[in-house]
Amino acid sequence: MGEVKNKQVILKDYITELFKESDMDIVEGAITLELPEGPNEVLLKNLYLSCDPYMRNRMNKILKIEGPATLLVGYVWGFTKWEEYSFVPSSRILFKIEHTDVPLSYYTGILGMPGITAYSGFFEVGLPKKGDKVYVSAASGAVGQLVGQFAKLSGCYVVGSAGSKDKFRFSVFVNTSKSFANNLILHASPPLHLNAYLSTTILQIRYFPEGIDIYFENVGGKTLNAVLLNMRINGRIVVCGMISQYQSAQPEGVTNLKKLITKRIRMQGFVVRDYYPMYPKYLEYVLTKIKEGDIVYVEDIVEGLENGPAALVGLFNGRNVGKQVLLVSRE
Amino acid sequence: MGEVKNKQVILKDYITELFKESDMDIVEGAITLELPEGPNEVLLKNLYLSCDPYMRNRMNKILKIEGPATLLVGYVWGFTKWEEYSFVPSSRILFKIEHTDVPLSYYTGILGMPGITAYSGFFEVGLPKKGDKVYVSAASGAVGQLVGQFAKLSGCYVVGSAGSKDKFRFSVFVNTSKSFANNLILHASPPLHLNAYLSTTILQIRYFPEGIDIYFENVGGKTLNAVLLNMRINGRIVVCGMISQYQSAQPEGVTNLKKLITKRIRMQGFVVRDYYPMYPKYLEYVLTKIKEGDIVYVEDIVEGLENGPAALVGLFNGRNVGKQVLLVSRE
Repeated sequence: MGEVKNKQVILKDYITELFKESDMDIVEGAITLELPEGPNEVLLKNLYLSCDPYMRNRMNKILKIEGPATLLVGYVWGFTKWEEYSFVPSSRILFKIEHTDVPLSYYTGILGMPGITAYSGFFEVGLPKKGDKVYVSAASGAVGQLVGQFAKLSGCYVVGSAGSKDKFRFSVFVNTSKSFANNLILHASPPLHLNAYLSTTILQIRYFPEGIDIYFENVGGKTLNAVLLNMRINGRIVVCGMISQYQSAQPEGVTNLKKLITKRIRMQGFVVRDYYPMYPKYLEYVLTKIKEGDIVYVEDIVEGLENGPAALVGLFNGRNVGKQVLLVSRE
Repeated sequence: MGEVKNKQVILKDYITELFKESDMDIVEGAITLELPEGPNEVLLKNLYLSCDPYMRNRMNKILKIEGPATLLVGYVWGFTKWEEYSFVPSSRILFKIEHTDVPLSYYTGILGMPGITAYSGFFEVGLPKKGDKVYVSAASGAVGQLVGQFAKLSGCYVVGSAGSKDKFRFSVFVNTSKSFANNLILHASPPLHLNAYLSTTILQIRYFPEGIDIYFENVGGKTLNAVLLNMRINGRIVVCGMISQYQSAQPEGVTNLKKLITKRIRMQGFVVRDYYPMYPKYLEYVLTKIKEGDIVYVEDIVEGLENGPAALVGLFNGRNVGKQVLLVSRE
């Protein structure tokens, strides 16, 4: 097979606050496509790479940097560096891809880590009941768009929001039709800051006059503070992410936590890794729903490894609509 | 029986921030000690009244004001106004006192609402396991001193803190002897603000090198923020109260909530009223332990209804050590 070029995206140094495209470099190495010596290495050719908000946390000092990727030789999916070809130790978990009658890019999203995240977070941590009032933030993202649909399919009332500070873009989708994601209503430029806006008008008066049973938390900060005022008794806050807080050395303070007491709220964080053993069960659940059109998955696919840094930075500026995927190679 | 004087403590108006003795008045009414007409009233003579932090929240606009009390005619305990004699509707829950071989004042504390609070919060919400590392704030208070002892009796490692901003008084007790409360070490005037101090030195380095499994939260604010950095994976934060936040129109912001995610923390509020059905079970548990000396209860008893306002205000200045009780009448 011989030596081939191996383009890579590397992070130049740890990042303290906002990160920029210029924090990353595209370098061109070379790799010899030979079967690895010994039993401890696997050679992969990467097809799709995933852009996810949690990656920002891996760029802080202290933590080891590691890029996620959906990999193909076999096919499999798992975690690698951001590059065209990867050697990974065979001790690393790689999931064998059994179903190829769906887009392979789905293994970075609905059929990969974000999918299990949405499933385990909503069902295992949120413990939904039919009729629950569910609110999802970052609801057009990789995880949020699934939570909304799972909630609807479970007989819940669902409202989601998505937006960015930069553009004051704001989107709310309500459960009026079969698919949650098909009902994403984009409100261009609301007059107030997204979070302040949520606090009074949107949440309580317009969408949750009786309050929220389950809040699927992806953003943190002011939105969380507003939600706390609108939770129902025995409500649950599933803490999946807090994207608004990842880039700040001094995160925003949440001041309404005493509502946890009077409203008997359970606020619980989780990490998807703990739920990987549920993957086969989840696949069974979701594949049928994809094939029958009960679940729709919106992707925002950028082509070319060299466009990866911009796509990753764009997540924090609200540039993407749907799961941000980076296409490295079609085969 | 005829007419007798009936001294009462009344709140003059709703309170917005700090409350003071002068917000309350002592008035002297009269009451006719006759059996109430109809089946809907109970006549009580109050012996002990309880001073608890949650009462501050009842003084804000919106909420109905209601004083708690331990009552005696029978004997019973329950909730009344702050006065010498009370008529209460028979629809109100009154607990009959069956055990009088313990101090009657205990029914405002260890054998009353604070006792069930500590028991249900620690066992039902905290779900302790033997060996868990437990941290209790406001640990010399009505509830905190019990949580510490329940934790020790359950085979947990326990550290508690208590203090006041005014005096920079600081107390930590560790589980070196049979009784938690007997090991309350008072650190007079530590050099830094109590909460800032907790953050680094006390919590992590000195007392919880491996982190905290259960935090029994009574104070909120900076202490909670410090604890979030020191929780262990799968830790639980039992949110019982946030006394540091009750008097402020602009509560302190909690900035470390994203730790809930990586550490898979469950942070859960509760209200004791939901657990009153457990009262008989709790009594059985605690009475034996009191009689065998396995549990000690520290009370701070002030005598005379006219001294009630000062005692209640004092709770928020850290004036009391142990459960604050107001003795109205010995019989």
